[in-house]
Amino acid sequence: MKRKKWPVFLPYDGDTWPDGYPMRYRPYVKKIVLFGKRNGLNFEVRYFEIEPGYASSLEKHQHQHAVLILKGRGYVLIGDRIYEVKPYDAVWIPSWTPHQLIASEDEPLGFICIVDVERDRPTPLSEEELRRIKEDPELASKVKFER
Amino acid sequence: MKRKKWPVFLPYDGDTWPDGYPMRYRPYVKKIVLFGKRNGLNFEVRYFEIEPGYASSLEKHQHQHAVLILKGRGYVLIGDRIYEVKPYDAVWIPSWTPHQLIASEDEPLGFICIVDVERDRPTPLSEEELRRIKEDPELASKVKFER
Repeated sequence: MKRKKWPVFLPYDGDTWPDGYPMRYRPYVKKIVLFGKRNGLNFEVRYFEIEPGYASSLEKHQHQHAVLILKGRGYVLIGDRIYEVKPYDAVWIPSWTPHQLIASEDEPLGFICIVDVERDRPTPLSEEELRRIKEDPELASKVKFER
Repeated sequence: MKRKKWPVFLPYDGDTWPDGYPMRYRPYVKKIVLFGKRNGLNFEVRYFEIEPGYASSLEKHQHQHAVLILKGRGYVLIGDRIYEVKPYDAVWIPSWTPHQLIASEDEPLGFICIVDVERDRPTPLSEEELRRIKEDPELASKVKFER
């Protein structure tokens, strides 16, 4: 199935995994795939690190996310609630739930996010979903709306 | 699909995840499922914590493991090699590879291990596989052979 031998041991060097495979994602967010399709797995384990004051895409989709925070501080929007997160907090993002991971203003936010290899593409929120977030002062103060 | 509402946010309390679901596994090893079948996921994210001087089962199986070390120090046997591990090291255990996670003598080893929900049962190593481990002094000094 795989032509190249993928390493079985990916040591962490204090900052990153030199044997992971970096992916382009969005500005101010580092994305590294630790395990996935290339290992013949049905799921993919990705590490994301968001710079202070930035966020992941504000989106929803059919596939689910399992998230484990590894570094820093930040917030996670899940539907119509926002949670303050710290290392080792675990977060489940169910199907079609609007979500965003947001780094704090002064610390990056690093986390792993596990998904199925076969998954649908993210879609933006509806006008109604955006309106509900914008009308809630707590959510509106944390969520990043720019694409 | 699921009858009960599972929490979307599982905070870490400095020691464990009170909202995870603990499972019986083997003596001296704590096992907590953070996400899995109950969330309607195709994969399962389990946290294991092995007490100092103990180990996971010495086994092999068709399903693969994706492992991320979270706490402590220890060793991972993968086939005919052993790796010293520390937090955030990532380990891939391919199909049918004999493996064991071993806590150091003075620190527990905590890690998450991700697997498919649908998976085969583990099987013990063959006599030949055991012999090869026992004949290698480095492996033999670390691996725990008792069931």
